[in-house]
Amino acid sequence: MPFTSVFLDISEKIASAVQERIRELVGTNDAGKILYIGADGTPTKLIDDVSENVIFEILEKEQMNFRIISEEAGERLTGKKPEYVLIIDPIDGTYNACSGIPFYSLSIAVATIENDAVFFGYVKNLATGDTFYAETGKGSYLNGSRIGTSINNDLSSFCMSIYGYRDNIRGAATLARSVRRIREFGSVALELCYVASGMIDAFADVRGTMRMTDVAAGKLIIEEAGGIITNEYGEALKLEDKIMSRVSVIASNGYSHEMILKLSAGIVNEGQ
Amino acid sequence: MPFTSVFLDISEKIASAVQERIRELVGTNDAGKILYIGADGTPTKLIDDVSENVIFEILEKEQMNFRIISEEAGERLTGKKPEYVLIIDPIDGTYNACSGIPFYSLSIAVATIENDAVFFGYVKNLATGDTFYAETGKGSYLNGSRIGTSINNDLSSFCMSIYGYRDNIRGAATLARSVRRIREFGSVALELCYVASGMIDAFADVRGTMRMTDVAAGKLIIEEAGGIITNEYGEALKLEDKIMSRVSVIASNGYSHEMILKLSAGIVNEGQ
Repeated sequence: MPFTSVFLDISEKIASAVQERIRELVGTNDAGKILYIGADGTPTKLIDDVSENVIFEILEKEQMNFRIISEEAGERLTGKKPEYVLIIDPIDGTYNACSGIPFYSLSIAVATIENDAVFFGYVKNLATGDTFYAETGKGSYLNGSRIGTSINNDLSSFCMSIYGYRDNIRGAATLARSVRRIREFGSVALELCYVASGMIDAFADVRGTMRMTDVAAGKLIIEEAGGIITNEYGEALKLEDKIMSRVSVIASNGYSHEMILKLSAGIVNEGQ
Repeated sequence: MPFTSVFLDISEKIASAVQERIRELVGTNDAGKILYIGADGTPTKLIDDVSENVIFEILEKEQMNFRIISEEAGERLTGKKPEYVLIIDPIDGTYNACSGIPFYSLSIAVATIENDAVFFGYVKNLATGDTFYAETGKGSYLNGSRIGTSINNDLSSFCMSIYGYRDNIRGAATLARSVRRIREFGSVALELCYVASGMIDAFADVRGTMRMTDVAAGKLIIEEAGGIITNEYGEALKLEDKIMSRVSVIASNGYSHEMILKLSAGIVNEGQ
């Protein structure tokens, strides 16, 4: 490991426990059973709930002092006086996990208790084990090796992840026609890490439905890898301390970021 | 294994050898080096070439009598008098393999020498090891367990893989707005198997660029799993014995197949 961190250790411990606990559920009908409406306003499925409960168990057992913001349970405290904020998506890509598609992840971001500044981010593909993480000022890593965004500066040859069909078909379609390859893997936290590692060149989700639990870890991992991540107006992402607040997200290797913003907004058409 | 087959055995042997040989190449810049223009008219990259050469080595060594149709090398004979036709895509999803995205596959179909009728199909995700296969009349399998297409009959809740942005944006966009979730993993052979196993509900590639090497195995795996696969007019796929010929492909669980054809052709709009 290129740097040691108590947060990397605890994240690895959490991930192993989640992988172990959900193994039998992945790809089964049971996994998708809806239990209740989660704190984020969307249905919580059995596999989300199981995963989240494991995480709480471990944090309680370790007696760590966290304020936890989680996608399903909302806010919760572990230990005594909270020292850090943990922003968690227990399973990002629930549909894939329920279907047995090997593309779903655990996302953990750690922020200061004083001003909610994220300084550690961790995303693991729970199916393949690929692990992305970053710490402020220390760079971004995949499975222990330093990563950086792609150096491709030709938008027309980009491989890009684009979400936004139903509500924003015009901008998304324009964008889709402007690049070489489209990917939609179905786990946004992981796809942001793909931008960080140069596996894809850029990412756009113009649905306005992303939550801080989806994005907090990926944002730091992209920035520490040399990439740019903003909202649809090119402004810094405001990951407000409200689990219900939603944003649109544009992330890139830094080249063509302005053009992606314009195309996704429908301000310019491809070829201009 | 639910059924034994000399073709399953040889496919597994080929897949292991390919996995072993490309391991060091996956995710490197070298993997994507263009060597020549392949038999299918598209650039052959180093990783495609390495994979294909391993396959020929094994088939020569086993002294099996095949006429081989492969995406890069075109047609070739192994052994003495050919007894079967092998239709091979050494790596489907070359971009993903070069980028280190764990979604690329080996596709092998076996057909009779008399009339090119495919009776065995095999697709393996070389990154995760997930293995799909089928034999005529014996059903389709994932990692040894019988699979079937989804029983979802509500198009608006479909999870669907859709390709077709640049050349056929209208039909593809209409289709995209008519379903619940879109996926684009970047390996068509594997995505066809996802329809077969009910991981996704349907698949449409309306670019008219699919080759028999991409589709031959997946077609049998879908049909033996109870699904439907046609061209964009709803006709049986003609996988002509010409590596250069290209088709569009619509595959589904059988529900809503007609509607998908109409939407992708732009004949009707969503909501009608």
